[in-house]
Amino acid sequence: MEREPSRLELFSDAVFAIIITILILEIKVPEAEGSELWHELALQWPQYAAYVVSFLVIGVMWVNHHTIFGHIKKVDRPLLFLNLMVLMIVAVIPWTTALLAVHLGNPESARIAAIIYSALTVVYAVAFLCFWWYVTRVGHLFRDNVDKDGARATRMRFGLGSIAYPITLVIAFFSAPLAVAAHAIIAIYYAFNQIPIPLIIDDRVPAEDA
Amino acid sequence: MEREPSRLELFSDAVFAIIITILILEIKVPEAEGSELWHELALQWPQYAAYVVSFLVIGVMWVNHHTIFGHIKKVDRPLLFLNLMVLMIVAVIPWTTALLAVHLGNPESARIAAIIYSALTVVYAVAFLCFWWYVTRVGHLFRDNVDKDGARATRMRFGLGSIAYPITLVIAFFSAPLAVAAHAIIAIYYAFNQIPIPLIIDDRVPAEDA
Amino acid sequence: MEREPSRLELFSDAVFAIIITILILEIKVPEAEGSELWHELALQWPQYAAYVVSFLVIGVMWVNHHTIFGHIKKVDRPLLFLNLMVLMIVAVIPWTTALLAVHLGNPESARIAAIIYSALTVVYAVAFLCFWWYVTRVGHLFRDNVDKDGARATRMRFGLGSIAYPITLVIAFFSAPLAVAAHAIIAIYYAFNQIPIPLIIDDRVPAEDA
Amino acid sequence: MEREPSRLELFSDAVFAIIITILILEIKVPEAEGSELWHELALQWPQYAAYVVSFLVIGVMWVNHHTIFGHIKKVDRPLLFLNLMVLMIVAVIPWTTALLAVHLGNPESARIAAIIYSALTVVYAVAFLCFWWYVTRVGHLFRDNVDKDGARATRMRFGLGSIAYPITLVIAFFSAPLAVAAHAIIAIYYAFNQIPIPLIIDDRVPAEDA
Repeated sequence: MEREPSRLELFSDAVFAIIITILILEIKVPEAEGSELWHELALQWPQYAAYVVSFLVIGVMWVNHHTIFGHIKKVDRPLLFLNLMVLMIVAVIPWTTALLAVHLGNPESARIAAIIYSALTVVYAVAFLCFWWYVTRVGHLFRDNVDKDGARATRMRFGLGSIAYPITLVIAFFSAPLAVAAHAIIAIYYAFNQIPIPLIIDDRVPAEDA
Repeated sequence: MEREPSRLELFSDAVFAIIITILILEIKVPEAEGSELWHELALQWPQYAAYVVSFLVIGVMWVNHHTIFGHIKKVDRPLLFLNLMVLMIVAVIPWTTALLAVHLGNPESARIAAIIYSALTVVYAVAFLCFWWYVTRVGHLFRDNVDKDGARATRMRFGLGSIAYPITLVIAFFSAPLAVAAHAIIAIYYAFNQIPIPLIIDDRVPAEDA
Repeated sequence: MEREPSRLELFSDAVFAIIITILILEIKVPEAEGSELWHELALQWPQYAAYVVSFLVIGVMWVNHHTIFGHIKKVDRPLLFLNLMVLMIVAVIPWTTALLAVHLGNPESARIAAIIYSALTVVYAVAFLCFWWYVTRVGHLFRDNVDKDGARATRMRFGLGSIAYPITLVIAFFSAPLAVAAHAIIAIYYAFNQIPIPLIIDDRVPAEDA
Repeated sequence: MEREPSRLELFSDAVFAIIITILILEIKVPEAEGSELWHELALQWPQYAAYVVSFLVIGVMWVNHHTIFGHIKKVDRPLLFLNLMVLMIVAVIPWTTALLAVHLGNPESARIAAIIYSALTVVYAVAFLCFWWYVTRVGHLFRDNVDKDGARATRMRFGLGSIAYPITLVIAFFSAPLAVAAHAIIAIYYAFNQIPIPLIIDDRVPAEDA
């Protein structure tokens, strides 16, 4: 039974790195010749938009995953399994991205694709909350400097933060481009703002104001 | 000649991470337009089922691989070669998964695909047992805290545990969906239960009941 | 909030490793039979050229990324985000490479493909300069042995060095093969020459003249 | 300028791990339905053979790469560049493997594919010898426990060992299956036998006879 998180973290990091990089494999190379190529490249804008948004979305998911593991010192079986669930869901994003990219040109199919794209992020949010719920339930896996009660208290805020994903799902029923834009905004917001995990004593060198 | 397992473990982890992540590349993006897309997405259920099952199957294989390496302190040539054999077999799973996914709709082809899918896991079990047999034979590669006689005694239980895979092969001759379900059940079972490797003194912090 | 660069570096390294390796996936396997196969293989020379050049280009980008992180001891949110931007751009190179490879045979389409290929490297240079600008602005993320004022002074030289990329863009408007050759020359030049980051005291073992 | 090999080794390991794992992506999933599927699967034997042989070939290349880096304590620019050359060549193997797999059914095309497959391994051997030549030339990058004169003396044996690859190239002109078999034999031979790098004092725990 594995107990130190470093290898699980490395494995998860590798999975995230692969997911974020294979996004590009889903963008087709246009074959038109001559100046017609400009036109065909321009028609591919939904693919470029989907690529950028998904890259940011996965990037933020990686940062979240990473932040939590920075506070964990032990790994047990349920955590291993919950982590595998999270990875299994995130690994589907290149597929929902391709689905979105292929269909963003046709309004009706785009709506369906955006619904599925958003639904997957909702499933991710649920899995991630289960993960966080388990980690904070007893707090037996935390590093010593984590304020366990404080961490448990963040559950509600984490949960509220995750409401952003169901909202994109609702938006997707009306407009695919708006849903994609919402995902981009959420990703950029979370890239700069994150619910901090409370520490008893922050004994590490502060990164700001050094 | 390499002697410390850390790099071999890292290499193996990377291979497992790639295998588990490229599973998604085998699921095609449906091209139907309008509400027809819902229909086509629904028809793809065998691909989704195959994805989930294989993700769990590979996840459990990774955990097993990982657990053993957590008890190894040295690597020699035969181990290196046996490890390469295990990886070579696991790396085929994305292909057997795609085979299963493509053919799960047609009962006769599905049986063939399920037979091959299950047969590969049997080959994996054999390779993994060879690996474990070699490691426990002398026990010269184990960390000091491993109970070598106890580890050798687990061979039989490991072997019995591996019977689950041939059973799925037998089931596959009768029904592909049942064989897939059996693989899912085995993976979930092993995600929570595993034959422990006996330690003389477990000097690491216990993960449970802390 | 993550503060040590090691995991970010590992994640970035994995992304670079994947990008550089999936380049080969874009080269099609010719299907012609008999001695006709020689002919078809020979016709693929643009794909081989594009592969070699992009491998070198990404290799140099990795070295640059790597060198900077060797001098960083802390990571904050903006750095994380800027790093993600750099990776998002580099990850597009397999696609621009495939675009170039497919179109290098037709002069008009080749020009367009080379323009896009070069334009992406310009975008990369801008993102990389933003990254370096941020790192050197305060220097609060540097290791202690970095000469912060000296590092800040390299900005201009880094910026001048990056002019090489816009030059390839200008060349691309006239000739795709010349633009590709320019990229190859730049990559080989930077493989052996790099703007050093000034250290107060270089306390590490010198690699040359040992 | 990077000076410690750990990150370069990690990057190289990741590249090797990806190369060895994407081999499977080149094997097509047969689409025939019913019992016709057995037949089509059987017809794919060249693809399976090519997969197994290339997996072993890359595995041995990884071990060689790995062994050398186990004796290196510093990295300089030329080494970085030579290493990139080696990786660039190895990364082409999935493509030569696919070429071989596609054409192994037709004797004339198979010969051509086998010639290219073998030629690439010859190019690899040359690049690897350049790499080893550079490392042993001065020996300034070696760990302290490496016998530099002894290491330099292995060059000839390394070179002789590499003659195996040109021999497969000669064989390929006559018979593709024989050339493939030769590659398999060489890989298995090198998996168990390797030219040792002489150490002054081997201060590490011996892996055998412990």
